[in-house]
Amino acid sequence: MAASRAPHVQLVIVGSVGLDTIETPSARRADVLGGSASYACAAASFFARTGMVGVVGHDFGDDYLDVYRAFGFDLLGLQVRQGRTFRWSGVYEDNMDNRRTLSTELNVFAEFAPELPENYRRAPFLFLANIAPSLQLRVLEQMRAPRFIAADTMDLWINVALNDLKKVIRKIDLLTLNESEARHLTGQRALIKAARTLLGWGPQHILIKKGEHGAILFSRSSAFLMPAFPLEAVQDPTGAGDTFAGGFIGHLAANGRVTERALRRAMLYGSVVASFNVEAFSLDRLRALKRRNIERRVREFERMLQV
Amino acid sequence: MAASRAPHVQLVIVGSVGLDTIETPSARRADVLGGSASYACAAASFFARTGMVGVVGHDFGDDYLDVYRAFGFDLLGLQVRQGRTFRWSGVYEDNMDNRRTLSTELNVFAEFAPELPENYRRAPFLFLANIAPSLQLRVLEQMRAPRFIAADTMDLWINVALNDLKKVIRKIDLLTLNESEARHLTGQRALIKAARTLLGWGPQHILIKKGEHGAILFSRSSAFLMPAFPLEAVQDPTGAGDTFAGGFIGHLAANGRVTERALRRAMLYGSVVASFNVEAFSLDRLRALKRRNIERRVREFERMLQV
Repeated sequence: MAASRAPHVQLVIVGSVGLDTIETPSARRADVLGGSASYACAAASFFARTGMVGVVGHDFGDDYLDVYRAFGFDLLGLQVRQGRTFRWSGVYEDNMDNRRTLSTELNVFAEFAPELPENYRRAPFLFLANIAPSLQLRVLEQMRAPRFIAADTMDLWINVALNDLKKVIRKIDLLTLNESEARHLTGQRALIKAARTLLGWGPQHILIKKGEHGAILFSRSSAFLMPAFPLEAVQDPTGAGDTFAGGFIGHLAANGRVTERALRRAMLYGSVVASFNVEAFSLDRLRALKRRNIERRVREFERMLQV
Repeated sequence: MAASRAPHVQLVIVGSVGLDTIETPSARRADVLGGSASYACAAASFFARTGMVGVVGHDFGDDYLDVYRAFGFDLLGLQVRQGRTFRWSGVYEDNMDNRRTLSTELNVFAEFAPELPENYRRAPFLFLANIAPSLQLRVLEQMRAPRFIAADTMDLWINVALNDLKKVIRKIDLLTLNESEARHLTGQRALIKAARTLLGWGPQHILIKKGEHGAILFSRSSAFLMPAFPLEAVQDPTGAGDTFAGGFIGHLAANGRVTERALRRAMLYGSVVASFNVEAFSLDRLRALKRRNIERRVREFERMLQV
């Protein structure tokens, strides 16, 4: 996007931007704003000055851009290309326990070549949200010595782009992935063994997401076990992992220092933002969310964790 | 069992005593000591003076009784009857994720009528481990105003003895059950809703066990979310829930006061005892365990929970 000013950016997030069509046991929504970068940037923007890197097509309407603008993250790194925006559709079955993809249209995403604006390249924090490892590498090459790099991935890349994925993993400080992906990637059933294998590949931290069962942060000499905030009703689980990671890295970037305590507190904030996100479709709940709602739920969460 | 003295008992535990034949992906063991009362009493005996209520047949050898005696819990409430001891056999499949029962022989358990020794009836703490709700009720009738009563149950009783189970639930302070059982019993998918329903039936506390994902304690005005201690290798998951509950109630009985903090700390101890138990078949790991091993792992666990 054209912009006349180049603000200071604390955190760069690259990922997918898409229009999702989602069916749950109780509802269906067509062409709602989605993609890993949308969710992660929205979540991070509650805490840090965040710049988005992604691509959309000419069908990506002003309504969607207005949603982004309301969150206040920077759009200088969002390319607009001829063609249609990336689209995904899926259905949640069996009480939300199982997600099945109905269709994926790459569209403009097929030719995406991320280009970072000059003011993004000096950002201290970088989050490579879930996209092809080759694109994550391309972004890494453009950054000038970021202080902290986190990356997410998914089963697809373990299956079709393992070499590039391993190159990414060697260059980052923190890898985040689901428990099933951690097992798949390492061949280890016990998460503590899977994490040890992944730590051996380079990162200082492995953040394993367990959905409704929380997350575990494995570092070289410690582990932090975090349950998930218990929810009464989940409307749409889409973006739970991306908002968790986005809130986490956003809180960490705002803090600036990467200590064990800072990482743990950032996980609480990420978990709370994700817990709000699943209460409605797309970014609807986050759009209405205030920082004070987050702080209140974090305090409630802390009371539930106090031994 | 005959005994010449009647020691002071802090905690009474009633449940099944059996000989188990267990197959896992890597090993098979025949006629090993098992049953909910065996596991719960062994775990509780690290903390509290515990009395066992159960029944065995004449085939229950001295070797098994010597194991009990080494744990140091009281056997005055253990009946020896003509006939064979209760037997169960099962197999763990799919990386321990699925347990299939191969056979169940009730034997002397079919005619079990628990009779509490006089010195048990005044015990302040009672744990009704997993047995038929009609037997749990029979024990409840014999107790003289215990300070705190906890009960466990299982899917079988929800299916075949729901009325008796609801009578038990009305009379106790804490109900413990698996997350799938909580959903089954209440028809609520969200655990927070399932717990609210169960709290409405009488107990002050609902302790939902989530296996490798930990446990949640729901009370009237609070909740405590506890992850599980992460394990490198599980040899035999049999008795994990019973040792968790036994360690929990044993620690609580030793403490004497039932505060929110005491309940939370008791859960840590129960979780740690269970984490040791699954490292070997039957009670083999607990037999070699010292209180200092428990304390060391509790401290390690606390460091993993510190926000």
